[in-house]
Amino acid sequence: MASTAGQVIKCKAAVAWEAGKPLVIEEVEVAPPQAMEVRVKILFTSLCHTDVYFWEAKGQTPVFPRILGHEAAGIVESVGEGVTDVQPGDHVLPVFTGECKECDHCKSEESNMCSLLRIDPDRGVMIGDGKSRFSINGKPIYHFLGTSTFSEYTVVHVGCLAKINPLAPLETVCVLSCGISTGFGATVNVAKPKKGSSVAVFGLGAVGLAAAEGARVSGASRIIGVDLNSDRFEQAKKFGVTEFVNPKDHDRPVQEVIAEMTGGGVDRSVECTGNINAMISAFECVHDGWGVAVLVGVPHKDDVFKTSPVNFLCERTLKGTFYGNYKPRSDIPGVVEKYMNKEMELEKFITHEVPFSEINKAFDLMFRGEGLRCLIRMEN
Amino acid sequence: MASTAGQVIKCKAAVAWEAGKPLVIEEVEVAPPQAMEVRVKILFTSLCHTDVYFWEAKGQTPVFPRILGHEAAGIVESVGEGVTDVQPGDHVLPVFTGECKECDHCKSEESNMCSLLRIDPDRGVMIGDGKSRFSINGKPIYHFLGTSTFSEYTVVHVGCLAKINPLAPLETVCVLSCGISTGFGATVNVAKPKKGSSVAVFGLGAVGLAAAEGARVSGASRIIGVDLNSDRFEQAKKFGVTEFVNPKDHDRPVQEVIAEMTGGGVDRSVECTGNINAMISAFECVHDGWGVAVLVGVPHKDDVFKTSPVNFLCERTLKGTFYGNYKPRSDIPGVVEKYMNKEMELEKFITHEVPFSEINKAFDLMFRGEGLRCLIRMEN
Ligand SMILES: NC(=O)c1ccc[n+]([C@@H]2O[C@H](COP(=O)([O-])OP(=O)(O)OC[C@H]3O[C@@H](n4cnc5c(N)ncnc54)[C@H](O)[C@@H]3O)[C@@H](O)[C@H]2O)c1
Ligand SMILES: NC(=O)c1ccc[n+]([C@@H]2O[C@H](COP(=O)([O-])OP(=O)(O)OC[C@H]3O[C@@H](n4cnc5c(N)ncnc54)[C@H](O)[C@@H]3O)[C@@H](O)[C@H]2O)c1
Ligand SMILES: [Zn+2]
Ligand SMILES: [Zn+2]
Ligand SMILES: [Zn+2]
Ligand SMILES: [Zn+2]
Repeated sequence: MASTAGQVIKCKAAVAWEAGKPLVIEEVEVAPPQAMEVRVKILFTSLCHTDVYFWEAKGQTPVFPRILGHEAAGIVESVGEGVTDVQPGDHVLPVFTGECKECDHCKSEESNMCSLLRIDPDRGVMIGDGKSRFSINGKPIYHFLGTSTFSEYTVVHVGCLAKINPLAPLETVCVLSCGISTGFGATVNVAKPKKGSSVAVFGLGAVGLAAAEGARVSGASRIIGVDLNSDRFEQAKKFGVTEFVNPKDHDRPVQEVIAEMTGGGVDRSVECTGNINAMISAFECVHDGWGVAVLVGVPHKDDVFKTSPVNFLCERTLKGTFYGNYKPRSDIPGVVEKYMNKEMELEKFITHEVPFSEINKAFDLMFRGEGLRCLIRMEN
Repeated sequence: MASTAGQVIKCKAAVAWEAGKPLVIEEVEVAPPQAMEVRVKILFTSLCHTDVYFWEAKGQTPVFPRILGHEAAGIVESVGEGVTDVQPGDHVLPVFTGECKECDHCKSEESNMCSLLRIDPDRGVMIGDGKSRFSINGKPIYHFLGTSTFSEYTVVHVGCLAKINPLAPLETVCVLSCGISTGFGATVNVAKPKKGSSVAVFGLGAVGLAAAEGARVSGASRIIGVDLNSDRFEQAKKFGVTEFVNPKDHDRPVQEVIAEMTGGGVDRSVECTGNINAMISAFECVHDGWGVAVLVGVPHKDDVFKTSPVNFLCERTLKGTFYGNYKPRSDIPGVVEKYMNKEMELEKFITHEVPFSEINKAFDLMFRGEGLRCLIRMEN
């Protein structure tokens, strides 16, 4: 065990004091891990749209002050009582949805929505004792998605950690901790396009391009990218996207445009925008008889999905997924191996890099729709 | 060929002159079958809710005068040019959705929505020449769903006929021509419950009880029947339904009642009502992580399916199906064999019988929600 084991660690963290206000780098105290918890030294983290969404906290229960961040890679510093799966020095990816290995979901082949450790954005504390492990001058700073990776050290439930090959470069596999696994898995685990099929991807951010990468790897022959931001199109070509549609260029619903391009609709679609209209279009643009649409984007709280029931009756399927249906502990080590074996590419997703002290720049880039993932390097 | 081949046949048919008015038995002229068509002597037909729906013609393009009926069994009288699959004397079930064997849908393993012969309730004529084969005093009487089985003779496209084992009793397998295959297939081909799983069936008419029969045959351990008419419950016990819920008995949404009964939701649900609220409940009552809901009921024209997109995101699946995803020519002969081998029961679906002259009684029974299928015997 490190010499810090069992001690409070003082380190830097980016604190969101209020909704929508720039993060502030503060010195925080990080308590030692309790039963079934692990303290992790974060080496790299990256910004995902979901962080921005809960930082804006529009129409949600705001939980502040809070340490955001959920896409990251690090090394185990110390472990709490009862933790046997990982030990200090292990390389890990924290994941926003956990795997207790004991509930009905963990035992099901289909679900990754662990009853104990599933995503709960309203929770700002650890599940063991209902308390935070972060504080400043004795006042608690809340957790986010059980990960809070915008900190040099964080405490995570052992069920939310994927132990990975120590030879994997943490600065690259970091993006498998959320967005890239989410998009890639949504295609390969849920939409499951056949070789030679057509796939539409709504939203060409990192999640959507990972969905496109999944379609490319599956042998799809047409990958239609849909985004409101045409600047996304040039970059998307690197991810196997073959055609582009900007809904703004058409005066009829984009589902009609796609149906016309494809003789009735695409075989599969994957929605990665979080926009309710894109969700409806993604469903309605799949071919009747066999089309499958998969929702990935996190909708706004009061959004309502509306469609004619006849669209279902005509043998279309609609599904949704968290984290690409991957179970973090069981499946993610294998996804890292896929990268190590060059079966999937990750470097092309990381378009920017900033030191931790400039974390707010990553937010600016996402607002401007520039680039895909901005890597935040914790050590200078 | 029968001596009537190539000739106009005069026979009795039940004509719907106007929306919602009792059918009138008339003498009609039935023209000989044209290219790819078959003239069938109907021996038995039964009433399905879909007939009633298009007879009421609420909010639809009304097509009258018309000969309704689409669930039936008969014998080929004569065939038109190019027909090689069936010949006079063959036993057949007419089906409202056809199979050309050449389009993308017919070639797909998943779809039964043939591009050429899919259901089109607004069409009242044959697809070959756009004309009707029925007339009274030279004035056309329109077809319904390409089948029009409320007639002693009808003309059907060869792609809409399942040629079945001549030893099968036509008065029983008649119900496989629509409702029972629809409900049974919705469960076994689309919902696919695992052994030991829980299944909710919304609507305990013939279609819903066939869905329950599919769940029973699949080894489901709990089959929860949901109907607004509690009189349905006693009968449903014969179909393996183990528990009953009448939404009227509860002051909260039935999906909440079912979630409570099942610790979070059923594994599968099949909606067989045609009611939009039941469709929404059927979707929302499936378990997150792995639940699959299947829509079967024919909705009203302007119905809108509304739900929170989070219900999908939590890994629920929603599908719909026509005719239980069976391809009529390829699959239905095998379903008849299943009955012949006692792997499924059909007799219990036929609760009433009337002679053709009393066909309006079958409508009365359906309105009163009495019984399941009323067999209409064409010959006295
Ligand atoms: N289900 C999960 O497990 C999971 C995990 C991670 C992220 N997400 C969600 O996935 C979504 C994408 O994340 P990201 O990091 O790639 O975001 P991003 O902001 O980088 O990309 C989203 C893209 O969608 C485009 N877009 C927005 N509205 C659109 C519309 N109506 N039509 C077409 N394009 C539209 C934007 O222009 C942008 O390029 C977000 O909603 C995020 O919260 C879900
Ligand atoms: N998709 C297809 O291929 C296909 C084929 C045949 C029939 N159908 C449709 O299937 C449905 C059922 O047909 P059927 O012949 O069994 O009809 P039916 O009238 O015999 O049975 C329907 C049952 O649903 C119940 N019901 C109505 N609203 C309800 C609600 N909100 N909640 C719970 N129960 C409710 C009724 O009380 C009735 O018992 C109809 O909509 C019919 O048009 C579809
Ligand atoms: Zn994320
Ligand atoms: Zn679990
Ligand atoms: Zn029917
Ligand atoms: Zn076809």
